[in-house]
Order: sequence, then C-alpha cells, then structure tokens
Amino acid sequence: MALKIKDVTLLKGERIDDLQCKGLGIIQNPDGFCFGVDAVLLSHFAHVRNNDRCLDLCSGTGIVPILMHGLNEERNAKYLGIEIQDTSVDMASRSVEMNGIKDFVHITKGDVKEAAAIVDAASFQLVTVNPPYMAASKALKNPTLPKTIARHEVMCDLRDVIRAASFALAKKGRFYMVHKPSRLAEIIAVMKEFNIEPKTMRMVHPYIDKEPVLVLIGGIKDGGVEMRVLAPLVLYEEQGVYTEELKSIYGISE
Amino acid sequence: MALKIKDVTLLKGERIDDLQCKGLGIIQNPDGFCFGVDAVLLSHFAHVRNNDRCLDLCSGTGIVPILMHGLNEERNAKYLGIEIQDTSVDMASRSVEMNGIKDFVHITKGDVKEAAAIVDAASFQLVTVNPPYMAASKALKNPTLPKTIARHEVMCDLRDVIRAASFALAKKGRFYMVHKPSRLAEIIAVMKEFNIEPKTMRMVHPYIDKEPVLVLIGGIKDGGVEMRVLAPLVLYEEQGVYTEELKSIYGISE
Repeated sequence: MALKIKDVTLLKGERIDDLQCKGLGIIQNPDGFCFGVDAVLLSHFAHVRNNDRCLDLCSGTGIVPILMHGLNEERNAKYLGIEIQDTSVDMASRSVEMNGIKDFVHITKGDVKEAAAIVDAASFQLVTVNPPYMAASKALKNPTLPKTIARHEVMCDLRDVIRAASFALAKKGRFYMVHKPSRLAEIIAVMKEFNIEPKTMRMVHPYIDKEPVLVLIGGIKDGGVEMRVLAPLVLYEEQGVYTEELKSIYGISE
Repeated sequence: MALKIKDVTLLKGERIDDLQCKGLGIIQNPDGFCFGVDAVLLSHFAHVRNNDRCLDLCSGTGIVPILMHGLNEERNAKYLGIEIQDTSVDMASRSVEMNGIKDFVHITKGDVKEAAAIVDAASFQLVTVNPPYMAASKALKNPTLPKTIARHEVMCDLRDVIRAASFALAKKGRFYMVHKPSRLAEIIAVMKEFNIEPKTMRMVHPYIDKEPVLVLIGGIKDGGVEMRVLAPLVLYEEQGVYTEELKSIYGISE
C-alpha cells in the first residue's frame, strides 16, 4: 500500500520512512536516533485486545504506538506515548498528524521517573517499552546527545522503566519489553520485584546458530508463576537474506 | 571404547548402561528413574577446572558426577554426590565401584535441606543439580515412589536446592543446573536471592522451530551482573535424526 500522508512539515535533516503497514509513515532524523528492528519486533510481540488503553514508555519518535495502531487497527485501542526529548516528541506528534491517527495515538512529553504526574495508577491494560539498553557510564562523552539518551541509561534506567510500567498497569495488565539478553537476569528480578510476573519470552538471534542479540519479554501485572519460552526468532537465513518470519514482520512480499 | 567394568553385583531389575565415555557404565533400574538427556547435557554444560571440588545435588544414580569425571578425567577433580533415596545411593555407589573411580567420585546419602550437616560452607568450587522439575501437588497419587521423588518437588524444591548450592559454594564458585523453561523466572529470582548471579544460559529445543524443553543455566556465587545467553542447543535435525552437536555429546561417531 502506498504511503497515505497528510500535509506535513519536515525540519532540516528529517525524512519520512514508510512503515510498510497500512500506508503509515514515520518522521525521523538520521542525525538523531532512528528506530531499528527491535521496535518493530516489540510492536509485533505485544498482544493488543479490543479497546485496550496502551502506554508506550521511552517512546522516541513514536514508532511503537504508531506501528501497533497499524497492526491492530480493528481493535479500537488507544495509545499514549511518553518521551522525554522535545525534538522526539515534536517529530512523533507530526508523524501522528501526518498519518491521520490522532484519534488513536497521542505522544506527550514526560519523564518515566515521574509517571505518577502523567498517568493515573492502574489505568492501562498494556505497557510497551524499548528502553535504553546500556548502563550509564561516567565515561560517556556526550551524555546529552539524543542518540546517547536513547541508548544509555542516562535519563532513566531499567528500574525506573519497570516501576513506571507497574504503576500504570491495571491488575492482569500486559507488559512487553525488548532488551539485551545480557540484562535478562536483572530484567526478570526487577519485573518480579514490581509485581510484573514474566510470562513469555522470545530470544532473537541474527542466525540460528548464533547467540541472541535481543530478548522480547512479556509479563502480567500480579500474574501467577510459570512462564512460556517461545521458539527462537531468527533474523537472517544467510547474510543479506531475511527469514520468512522477518519478511512477514517487515511486510515484505516476494 | 568398550565398557571397562569391575566385578559388580546387579540386583533384580537392574541393568548396566554404557555411557559412551571413557569406558564408563552406570547401573540403573528401569522400574525406577533412569537418567535422560538432561543429565547428559548438564554434565557437558558444567565447566570443570583443575583440582575442583564438585558437589552434585539430587544425584540419583550418580550419572552427573560419574559422567563429569569421565569428561574431565585430566582435571583431577573430586566429586561428591548427595542423594536422598537409599536405593539410588546404593546403585550409584556400586556404579562408582564398578567403574574403578572411587578415588574421584563418592555418593552419600543426604537431604539437600540439611546440606549444612553434610558439607562445609563455601567448600566447593562447583555445584551441579538436575532437580525435580515439577511442583509438588496434593493430587500426587504416589508421593513416595522413587520416580515421583525424582520428578516432583516432594522431598526438596527449587529454593532448597539453590539454598544448599549457595551454602556449599566458595566465593566465585560455579553453579550449573538443568530445569524446565517454564520455571525460568523463579530460577533466576531465587538464584539472585541466594547470591548466585546467573551468568550463562542455554535453551534446549527439540527442533529449531519449537519451544525449548529444557534450560541450562550457570551462575557464579557473588558474581557481578550481566549474563551471556548462548545459541540454542537443538536435539533433532528431523524425527529420529540427532543434530551433529547432540551426536558429539552422546559420543556417537558416524
């Protein structure tokens, strides 16, 4: 389907990328932080139900709520994205406008560490987050750069994100996160600490015989113990050749 | 290599299985509980260093310490297996005798819940365990049957096992366990609670596109955070055909 965009203003350096889903596009600035396969996989991993209120933390350019809306159009769900960087909020808001989906998706400026000032407790059925993966380090050269903030735990860390998710989630609400496998033990421990029981997990491997580069993890607020580990999600058959599953996720038809 | 067994007495129903490793055999009773691929994978997953003192909990017929001795013969490590069922201790002790390895492997009767009565604190460099996988249920029909005790948390549960491992491990000692993926979140949380930091994990899948049936997990007593998730371990190429890796683990040469 061709891009269906409305009047839009692009600032210097910005471009529009086609999400290959229901004619949706997204404004990004290659000098800043552009979304990757992780955000796309997270959007597909999250299970949206009818009339869900969905919250996306560390929303960046709004890729996750915009794509989740496209993937679950018939569900009539509403999405709120929270993002701390002004330029990202501005780009995300223009993307929402351009896509004509402002009845469904809204992006607001906010700090996940102060979630209680932005959203009501227990008011969402679903929370997604594609947080910064790397621990902050004093050695960071440019801690205020947009890319640094998106990648490193400068403005918020794993605990902040999961605490905010737990605050926002209704009982039995669903939590979905993408992160680095190296952080898995911390992720599971912190989820349990904040009463989000891990219930589903999928490792993402570049090739079937390689270590995973990402982990998709889902939890239930106040859920019972025992979880399901899914079959591996593999990105490439061989160099430059996507697997059938990734082609399907990317909306690539042969 | 042919089995190299010494004089041995077999009781009614018992048989000797060839471990396909350094001529070692093991006595089992098919009416009781026979070891499976999980014990073999655990023995290969555990990393033995020179002169290690190794403890195996829930040792059963002694498969893990006997096989680990065979796989690491040059390391001069010593193995103590603790097992609660008399008949298993007896079979394991005769297997040790039969293999002529009593200078290296010893199996003793004991309850992991009372580990402090059997071993000294912080006295082992390595602990392995292939514990009962399933939570005990009041619906269990035969809670005293050997198979039930081996499979269900009747005599000890996950916390008992990890508490005992933590007690026995020296600082920076290595812990290796095989378990069910459905219990992963509990496993990680309890390991962290008892200061065994998860450091390495490998999912075991029957086929590459199927959910894992086992998880191998390794931890370090008082270790730092961050872990490594390995490439999947796959058992079958197709029905009845082992993968090359499993053939290698089973000592099967073409």
